[in-house]
Amino acid sequence: METDGISLKGPVLIRLPKGKDLLEALAEAAASINATKAHVAVIGALEKTKLGYYLQDERRYVDFSFDEHVEILCGQGNISLKDGKPFVHLHLTLSRKDCSCLGGHAMAGSIIFAAEACITPVAGDALVRGFDEPTGLFLWK
Amino acid sequence: METDGISLKGPVLIRLPKGKDLLEALAEAAASINATKAHVAVIGALEKTKLGYYLQDERRYVDFSFDEHVEILCGQGNISLKDGKPFVHLHLTLSRKDCSCLGGHAMAGSIIFAAEACITPVAGDALVRGFDEPTGLFLWK
Amino acid sequence: METDGISLKGPVLIRLPKGKDLLEALAEAAASINATKAHVAVIGALEKTKLGYYLQDERRYVDFSFDEHVEILCGQGNISLKDGKPFVHLHLTLSRKDCSCLGGHAMAGSIIFAAEACITPVAGDALVRGFDEPTGLFLWK
Repeated sequence: METDGISLKGPVLIRLPKGKDLLEALAEAAASINATKAHVAVIGALEKTKLGYYLQDERRYVDFSFDEHVEILCGQGNISLKDGKPFVHLHLTLSRKDCSCLGGHAMAGSIIFAAEACITPVAGDALVRGFDEPTGLFLWK
Repeated sequence: METDGISLKGPVLIRLPKGKDLLEALAEAAASINATKAHVAVIGALEKTKLGYYLQDERRYVDFSFDEHVEILCGQGNISLKDGKPFVHLHLTLSRKDCSCLGGHAMAGSIIFAAEACITPVAGDALVRGFDEPTGLFLWK
Repeated sequence: METDGISLKGPVLIRLPKGKDLLEALAEAAASINATKAHVAVIGALEKTKLGYYLQDERRYVDFSFDEHVEILCGQGNISLKDGKPFVHLHLTLSRKDCSCLGGHAMAGSIIFAAEACITPVAGDALVRGFDEPTGLFLWK
């Protein structure tokens, strides 16, 4: 159903599978509801984590691996198109067993212990990522 | 109103009461709009806090009490059914007066100083928590 | 379109401009979709940051400036009216290049490197901020 160009698809809550890569699981969950433009939120816990930080001056990501159990305090991001395929852009805030926090840009290699996602489809034309010269990132055109 | 099985109830913004337990206040706010399946987001500040961390290997929560004033940078989670009643699953990212962060699974005993919540009802069948053998947690069946 | 008093405007995803003040950019993005009552979520990166922490006993904010590049792990908040104008209340969780976190109440002076926002309009009467004696804050009346 469309109303004033707004597709009336509401958010969904989805449990993600243990042992799966978090970014892959979110991409599959979005695909299962045909969402190629969406807001994503997730909480839960990870068995291990890979995070990135973007060096704005050097225009490259550095990445960090954490082989410890952490809570996902907040995963937040979106789904849009990159190279013609749905792409999950997700930032993660995590906590350790002493309640201290760490976080960054979610990279492939973050493995789910348990996770509950809310995926909210967004109406309108697809958002497409392309190279952005001022930042060196792939941003929405 | 139902459209393709999607109930057209949008998100609400609700101020939560000072001095109240955060989890109780969120449960009451959700009940006030008849939401038993919802996404929850909250910002604000707490007078004191109780957080949990799940020991994945030992399959039990440890909890931590913080008797200090903190900002709620991000409370994120959901509402589903556990033992037949609405259950709030919330993770908290908090900041101290030097801007350092702490966080974890929100436990009873986190007391509101000020809080603004966004509760987004989700359409469809209720989600029910049951014991999950692989994790030792109560997850959606 | 209105259904049971619920306006059927869904969320939008918006790229915010590099070099702009984050709070101003969010206010302009909200204005561009005529949202004066909304939930706000944002991820991205900042060139520099100004954060506040509210001293609950002294009833005043202290603020902190960080002249370093950080990831926006989670910006979360809302838009309501203060002094008759749309007002963005936003809390920020940020990460440094070692994945450590900092955060607080977003103040003017947080400058965007790249940012992707999700703004979700909320139906119903406008929320208006007024002075709240028990907290010393400007809360929804």
